[in-house]
Amino acid sequence: MFPGRFQPFHKGHYSAIMQLLEEYDEIVIGIGSAQEGYTCRNPFTAGERWEMIYRIAKGNNLVGKIWPIPLPDINMPLTWTAYILSLSPRVEAIASGNPQTLYLFEWLGYRTKKIKLLEPTKYHGTRIRNIMVSGSDEWRELVPPEVTEYIDEIKGVERVRRLCLDEHTQH
Amino acid sequence: MFPGRFQPFHKGHYSAIMQLLEEYDEIVIGIGSAQEGYTCRNPFTAGERWEMIYRIAKGNNLVGKIWPIPLPDINMPLTWTAYILSLSPRVEAIASGNPQTLYLFEWLGYRTKKIKLLEPTKYHGTRIRNIMVSGSDEWRELVPPEVTEYIDEIKGVERVRRLCLDEHTQH
Amino acid sequence: MFPGRFQPFHKGHYSAIMQLLEEYDEIVIGIGSAQEGYTCRNPFTAGERWEMIYRIAKGNNLVGKIWPIPLPDINMPLTWTAYILSLSPRVEAIASGNPQTLYLFEWLGYRTKKIKLLEPTKYHGTRIRNIMVSGSDEWRELVPPEVTEYIDEIKGVERVRRLCLDEHTQH
Amino acid sequence: MFPGRFQPFHKGHYSAIMQLLEEYDEIVIGIGSAQEGYTCRNPFTAGERWEMIYRIAKGNNLVGKIWPIPLPDINMPLTWTAYILSLSPRVEAIASGNPQTLYLFEWLGYRTKKIKLLEPTKYHGTRIRNIMVSGSDEWRELVPPEVTEYIDEIKGVERVRRLCLDEHTQH
Amino acid sequence: MFPGRFQPFHKGHYSAIMQLLEEYDEIVIGIGSAQEGYTCRNPFTAGERWEMIYRIAKGNNLVGKIWPIPLPDINMPLTWTAYILSLSPRVEAIASGNPQTLYLFEWLGYRTKKIKLLEPTKYHGTRIRNIMVSGSDEWRELVPPEVTEYIDEIKGVERVRRLCLDEHTQH
Amino acid sequence: MFPGRFQPFHKGHYSAIMQLLEEYDEIVIGIGSAQEGYTCRNPFTAGERWEMIYRIAKGNNLVGKIWPIPLPDINMPLTWTAYILSLSPRVEAIASGNPQTLYLFEWLGYRTKKIKLLEPTKYHGTRIRNIMVSGSDEWRELVPPEVTEYIDEIKGVERVRRLCLDEHTQH
Repeated sequence: MFPGRFQPFHKGHYSAIMQLLEEYDEIVIGIGSAQEGYTCRNPFTAGERWEMIYRIAKGNNLVGKIWPIPLPDINMPLTWTAYILSLSPRVEAIASGNPQTLYLFEWLGYRTKKIKLLEPTKYHGTRIRNIMVSGSDEWRELVPPEVTEYIDEIKGVERVRRLCLDEHTQH
Repeated sequence: MFPGRFQPFHKGHYSAIMQLLEEYDEIVIGIGSAQEGYTCRNPFTAGERWEMIYRIAKGNNLVGKIWPIPLPDINMPLTWTAYILSLSPRVEAIASGNPQTLYLFEWLGYRTKKIKLLEPTKYHGTRIRNIMVSGSDEWRELVPPEVTEYIDEIKGVERVRRLCLDEHTQH
Repeated sequence: MFPGRFQPFHKGHYSAIMQLLEEYDEIVIGIGSAQEGYTCRNPFTAGERWEMIYRIAKGNNLVGKIWPIPLPDINMPLTWTAYILSLSPRVEAIASGNPQTLYLFEWLGYRTKKIKLLEPTKYHGTRIRNIMVSGSDEWRELVPPEVTEYIDEIKGVERVRRLCLDEHTQH
Repeated sequence: MFPGRFQPFHKGHYSAIMQLLEEYDEIVIGIGSAQEGYTCRNPFTAGERWEMIYRIAKGNNLVGKIWPIPLPDINMPLTWTAYILSLSPRVEAIASGNPQTLYLFEWLGYRTKKIKLLEPTKYHGTRIRNIMVSGSDEWRELVPPEVTEYIDEIKGVERVRRLCLDEHTQH
Repeated sequence: MFPGRFQPFHKGHYSAIMQLLEEYDEIVIGIGSAQEGYTCRNPFTAGERWEMIYRIAKGNNLVGKIWPIPLPDINMPLTWTAYILSLSPRVEAIASGNPQTLYLFEWLGYRTKKIKLLEPTKYHGTRIRNIMVSGSDEWRELVPPEVTEYIDEIKGVERVRRLCLDEHTQH
Repeated sequence: MFPGRFQPFHKGHYSAIMQLLEEYDEIVIGIGSAQEGYTCRNPFTAGERWEMIYRIAKGNNLVGKIWPIPLPDINMPLTWTAYILSLSPRVEAIASGNPQTLYLFEWLGYRTKKIKLLEPTKYHGTRIRNIMVSGSDEWRELVPPEVTEYIDEIKGVERVRRLCLDEHTQH
């Protein structure tokens, strides 16, 4: 199980999955904050993030190897762990590069696997969304080609810009 | 999108999926009441129900055609519809044999597809669980062979019996 | 403040309101279980119940005297009282014929007013819905004419019947 | 349906309502974040905001034309839309000047109406509360006279100041 | 940790605690469904159940040995376990006579201790409340003397009767 | 009843309790935001905060005088008051140094007692956690010795540092 928010799914995530597939046969990808969408911090819906992963699977011969599932938030960090385990097929371990996630599963006594993130200051969701807001096209090199294409299809950059610019002038 | 509780996944569900695959290329299977498990009415966890569907997919060459996702409850019927749409990839229609589900999506103005259920009084979750409690083996013929095997592996019948019998003497 | 579920609004409710208007200038009518709708026990949405009360107001010269507001449930009886007070304009007292409601507001130390119900075994939501399911037209005499008309417009009887009959054969 | 937080109801809101009444006979005014109150960002309770609108209605001959209802939050943006539709009487469209609100209803496939806001940087809830905290009386010209009077009655300015100043020194 | 609903605290609970104190130095007593009260099934508030246990502690020299804490419900059985662990001081094991509770903690991989209940069909919350409703005084012998006294003080029997009788005639 | 977050329990809290014990025989200590833990703002779980208070009780002869109970959040300020009253044994008053808490209980019509805080800018949870993050040992003089010892046992400083530093670089 590899949980994340995937706003959007970027090359750091792709690298993490490839690293995990060396060790495990199949991966459940947990799409966190699944109830969110159309906000500056979570512009893409769970369904859209599901489709990004779906296209990654189709485009890289990973169908049957990676299984995306939505994970809605419950605002109780110590309970969230059991919650996502209850929604997921039995997994061997939780893989994450996020120290808080690792802490929380250790608190519960569950196996964890620390992922070595690929250049985490470069491949980073918040940074990618900020680049989109700024109007630069540099974000295109930070996500896999299937995701670039999908974001273009759904006019994602325009959405991110409008949501984030509006938020600062909201009343 | 085909939502259901799948407690357990039975031949009526299998028949519905086959019927839908004649019309659609891929189906999202929504595992409802996903937060439930280890109760008399919902003995199997979302993860276990996910694994039933996963094995059906593996055993019937349906990997890449059926995609199970967990759908936790929110106890607001008129809002639940938008909730499950937000967790799911964009689908063409909601398919169900349950009139309330169809009603609710029509209220929202969403496309629905009425499924013709296979012998609904025979292939019926509550009936199958009651048969398990009674001690009879007749349930084995009501679910696909992959599910029989899986329920045996996780000692599912014993669980259903203990949970349902305990519930009547609980204090 | 006069809270109720109003499934549907019947002559007992109308009589209670008339009784209260002898003592108070204006009444806030709290539509309880507002998040419900399209279930056997709560077939009408909050909006539909709001419209029943709206038509009663229009038809009986009560606009500006009765003010309907929706009150969603929170499943915490002792907290529900403060919750509905927080959603409502400041009221002088809570009026109810339901002993549990009166108990809960007394627990909180709030003023209550016990309503004398008009023939409560006759004018009774559950009874009216059961009559609808049975196919009899007798329910028409138990609700005000504005409500009869509105239920006919939205094909309410057919809905109640389908929802309640389906519930017993659900799987 | 015109949803907003109305912290407090100001002349920009009044102008929006007048603009809508040229096109529609009646307006449902949805008081958002209704469960909030006595915080720096949401100092007024739903009931107090209801009373502001009530007094606007009484003072401007709008009783029977504008209908305020409380709308509690659910922290799921894509689901919130169906939620508030379920609490409201059937409306022809959702009117808003907030692009996120418009986006979300479009996602659901619902009719929206973009309101042209009156000088949005001047008539702006956050700005008005900041002026109150600063001690200036300038806020009085930004809200309708009925609201000025009501805020004085409930000692609203003192409340806003204490809540916002405390928040910065809270532990 | 010994979780229960304690509606009311009876001699079976007392016996379980005494049995546990032979093995453990201190016990956390988890008052389940803590958000409930003034309903037929949960007539006593968490605070009242807390006071029953408090008086048991005072009357039996158990202050500093038994520690009652309230545990509100979350309606997610597989997540509830982590939730109550997060609210409780670290405990060595969960003790229960309820098979579902034991099952759920085993699912999480947590230590459990099966309590041998004292005559469970005799000392049984539902049975005790039914006796109260029936008007018989027989319940007095099923609870410890401190609890009898407390229930008399708060007029508990009258409350149980009114709540349960009303529930059957509610509209 | 003395509610607080106790992240961590410090000498200001201790002073408040001593001040209250001059007037009251026993105090219920409400551990707020009880569902939180392992976050930068709420690093300690409810159980850990319970144990801090438990050790204070043991070390200062206060067993049977101070009673800690966990209070999970509900994100509705005006309803939270009734919620925590429902979870607590009946208390004579709510004691707090926080103006918002006092406001909210006054809104409900409940007795409050304003606590005079001991040097609130010095003994202050956020300040203490910031000192921990900075690497200084100065926090040790701001909390009672039992708490220093306990935080060392659970390696609390390292946890606070990792959680707060990670949060700023999270993706």
